[in-house]
Amino acid sequence: MSNALTTRSQDYAQWYNDLILKGGLADYSAVRGCMVIKPYGYGLWENMRDVLDRRFKETGHQNAYFPLFVPKSLFEAEEKNAEGFAKECAVVTHYRLKNDPSHPGKLIIDPNAKLEEELVVRPTSEAIIWSTYKNWIQSYRDLPLLINQWANVVRWEMRTRLFLRTAEFLWQEGHTAHASKAEAIEETKKMIEVYAQFAEEYMALPVLRGVKSANERFAGAEDTYCIEALMQDGKALQAGTSHFLGQNFAKAFDVKFSDKNNQLEYVWATSWGVSTRLIGALVMAHSDDEGLVLPPKLAPLQVVIVPIYNKDESVRQRLDETADSLMKELRSKGIRVQYDNDDSTRPGWKFAEHELRGVPVRVALGPRDLENKLAEVARRDTKEKQSLSLDGLSGHIEGLLTDIQQNLYNRALQFREEKSSKADNWDEFVQLLDEKTGFVYAHWDGTPETEEKIKELTKATIRCIPLDNPQEEGKCILTGNPSKERVVFARAY
Amino acid sequence: MSNALTTRSQDYAQWYNDLILKGGLADYSAVRGCMVIKPYGYGLWENMRDVLDRRFKETGHQNAYFPLFVPKSLFEAEEKNAEGFAKECAVVTHYRLKNDPSHPGKLIIDPNAKLEEELVVRPTSEAIIWSTYKNWIQSYRDLPLLINQWANVVRWEMRTRLFLRTAEFLWQEGHTAHASKAEAIEETKKMIEVYAQFAEEYMALPVLRGVKSANERFAGAEDTYCIEALMQDGKALQAGTSHFLGQNFAKAFDVKFSDKNNQLEYVWATSWGVSTRLIGALVMAHSDDEGLVLPPKLAPLQVVIVPIYNKDESVRQRLDETADSLMKELRSKGIRVQYDNDDSTRPGWKFAEHELRGVPVRVALGPRDLENKLAEVARRDTKEKQSLSLDGLSGHIEGLLTDIQQNLYNRALQFREEKSSKADNWDEFVQLLDEKTGFVYAHWDGTPETEEKIKELTKATIRCIPLDNPQEEGKCILTGNPSKERVVFARAY
Repeated sequence: MSNALTTRSQDYAQWYNDLILKGGLADYSAVRGCMVIKPYGYGLWENMRDVLDRRFKETGHQNAYFPLFVPKSLFEAEEKNAEGFAKECAVVTHYRLKNDPSHPGKLIIDPNAKLEEELVVRPTSEAIIWSTYKNWIQSYRDLPLLINQWANVVRWEMRTRLFLRTAEFLWQEGHTAHASKAEAIEETKKMIEVYAQFAEEYMALPVLRGVKSANERFAGAEDTYCIEALMQDGKALQAGTSHFLGQNFAKAFDVKFSDKNNQLEYVWATSWGVSTRLIGALVMAHSDDEGLVLPPKLAPLQVVIVPIYNKDESVRQRLDETADSLMKELRSKGIRVQYDNDDSTRPGWKFAEHELRGVPVRVALGPRDLENKLAEVARRDTKEKQSLSLDGLSGHIEGLLTDIQQNLYNRALQFREEKSSKADNWDEFVQLLDEKTGFVYAHWDGTPETEEKIKELTKATIRCIPLDNPQEEGKCILTGNPSKERVVFARAY
Repeated sequence: MSNALTTRSQDYAQWYNDLILKGGLADYSAVRGCMVIKPYGYGLWENMRDVLDRRFKETGHQNAYFPLFVPKSLFEAEEKNAEGFAKECAVVTHYRLKNDPSHPGKLIIDPNAKLEEELVVRPTSEAIIWSTYKNWIQSYRDLPLLINQWANVVRWEMRTRLFLRTAEFLWQEGHTAHASKAEAIEETKKMIEVYAQFAEEYMALPVLRGVKSANERFAGAEDTYCIEALMQDGKALQAGTSHFLGQNFAKAFDVKFSDKNNQLEYVWATSWGVSTRLIGALVMAHSDDEGLVLPPKLAPLQVVIVPIYNKDESVRQRLDETADSLMKELRSKGIRVQYDNDDSTRPGWKFAEHELRGVPVRVALGPRDLENKLAEVARRDTKEKQSLSLDGLSGHIEGLLTDIQQNLYNRALQFREEKSSKADNWDEFVQLLDEKTGFVYAHWDGTPETEEKIKELTKATIRCIPLDNPQEEGKCILTGNPSKERVVFARAY
């Protein structure tokens, strides 16, 4: 099975697709642009969601749930936001089907069931949520309001790719309301840092923290903070965003509060989200030509034990007993382990299958090992194998999982460092983008026009202006106009 | 606040609505028939979901995620299912909005973005899932396929009520595929028992386990198993269903597997679900005229501690310290506790508020109690108060939570027993339904026509034919035709 995989050097995009499909993470569906998240992929998402959800709650947020549909009149209330999403909205116009009189057994839309007002399937929920917050916020005592929602959203993309860009995707969206601008900005920054730490500690994915240029800002935001990761093909991927929305939505929905001096003020807002796109980032950052490589902290299955049976029934029994006791020890340490004793496939096939699925540690138990009280332990990231004593093996594996997690991070960080360059003139800039790829730090004159022109010429965009960016006099690589800091360019997903 | 509640005897429906809104569980939204689940209500749902999800996993199921949209041609493939849901489908017809040339700032549907085929927003996912299973199932080795999905679904109901009947609701839907009829029926029964145990052990809600009559079956099912609960107004509420789908969906989507003899056979199917409707059931079963009464095992907050401050700062400090140490002890026992030391409201107001919100145990700490090393502990279900020693208080509270959980169950069971009657003739039947209300066990001739007629005359439906129903010769209460068992009638939500 695994030898049917496309390699990265052959065709990176096809390699990615092969991994997602053959690794069992997702499948295409009967609906254009929508995917099915298979149990293995969903297990990964559950692990990510659980960690993030805990972090949101630790930072004072509560979950709630708002409607899937947004009436068109609400959707258009915040004009910039509406304009940004109008071109990719799925729209519900009718609420009933009826039998097709000319084709028995077929259904058609019932023209008598046309909605008075069309409903937009939420591409994001600021509009529906702020129309609700209007009823929840009267006084400064109602603030801050710190709410998160786990939900599905729909953006009708023309070109879709599994996990990276699909018409429907799963995400979380935080929507907070504050009494002051400073507090809202603090929240925006706090949540981008929550995302950054999650990416680095759990996904083993080093990220740049930064702010978007005006061109790349969320529609309706005053400022968009982001985390940006680098994939193995040298392209950037935006892994999470946190928006300072100013008073834009409060003004659009007339959400005011009376402050301590009894003055009416508009409320300050933030929103922030990450999606199932993170699964795409995880896959592209760490995997190799043999299949998925998953960070142990998030892998649905962390250890798999494969017995090497022979025809001797008593050997089989002893292997099963050994595996059983090892599993118990591992589970008592909170490690997710499975015993793959399916008789219908051979060990070699299983090894390839578990490599393909990115299980971090594989333990093989054979008859000869057993006599010597040994097991063969293979790590997925480096493919190193070791013969280790069964005594204390669970403790060793626990340490190994930590090592693998750290190694994946270090490897990705080293890769990013190698693929980060400075360009001081246009030719150098273009050459770096084309030949070296990765992040290119360069001076830019700060205008949207220049950014747009650079994008036209090179397909590279400003990924972010890093937080705490060193200030440095320089000249814009395109216009030569003065600049006081470098920004990060890359081609991106 | 709580004295503004409608009482049950005044207007049961209004009482329910008051509780949902003022208890902070949900709110109306800007979308007809859709609700907002507020943080407190969502916390309740999270607790329910977590228990159910663990039980599903313990019984061998995995979660996955399938698309929100169902292309019309797939939706209509299983005719009975399609017919059953066609009249309440939200339909997406377009995928883009554009600026309205005659009203700047407004949006209209872009007529050039009409979908070739309409998309139905899933009212249930059998169609989209079985169209996918076709690609996943080839051999008996691929079976059983045991998958669950947590998702939102949309059914365009004309009359909606918060949690009980809303256009959009949250639920889980299990969809399993099996190699034999017997195995599929076993799964169907296993899952209704999972639901029944959840209702009884966690929701403190006694339920009847039974099978639906043909009239009340899920559209497309061969048999629908259900759990039925009784509300305080004597009306029944269907709390969960598990369907044996036979080979209907396998035939509609041509899903066959090769068995061990290499013969191609259609796959056998089940589906089963519970929804946020359970929150409505929970509220209606246990609550009283002072507000919500929540079972401790599911309550978002199990214990609240209220300090009775006076003007003495040192007293305040000692109260805070005492509360702090009590909270630590309670949390170490896994108890969800909050310290309500907000200075802006008075203790009496807080007591009413926590009663309204159904917090199972309230601890009041006052200066005089403190001198005597006592605390006042009030239980929400019976409103009994006790003065208890601070020594060992956390252990006492832990026991109290168990007591309350058991008491709520016993109370609901006793109520149901009192409201369960046998009717042996028509007049008795009608009188029981009108005056006593509740479950009425009566003979029925087994025909859909009679059932329909009874419904027309009394608004009562057959809630279920209980599992392991005693067999007993009798005559149908309406037609006098012979019957060999009683079935359970009630008016229902």
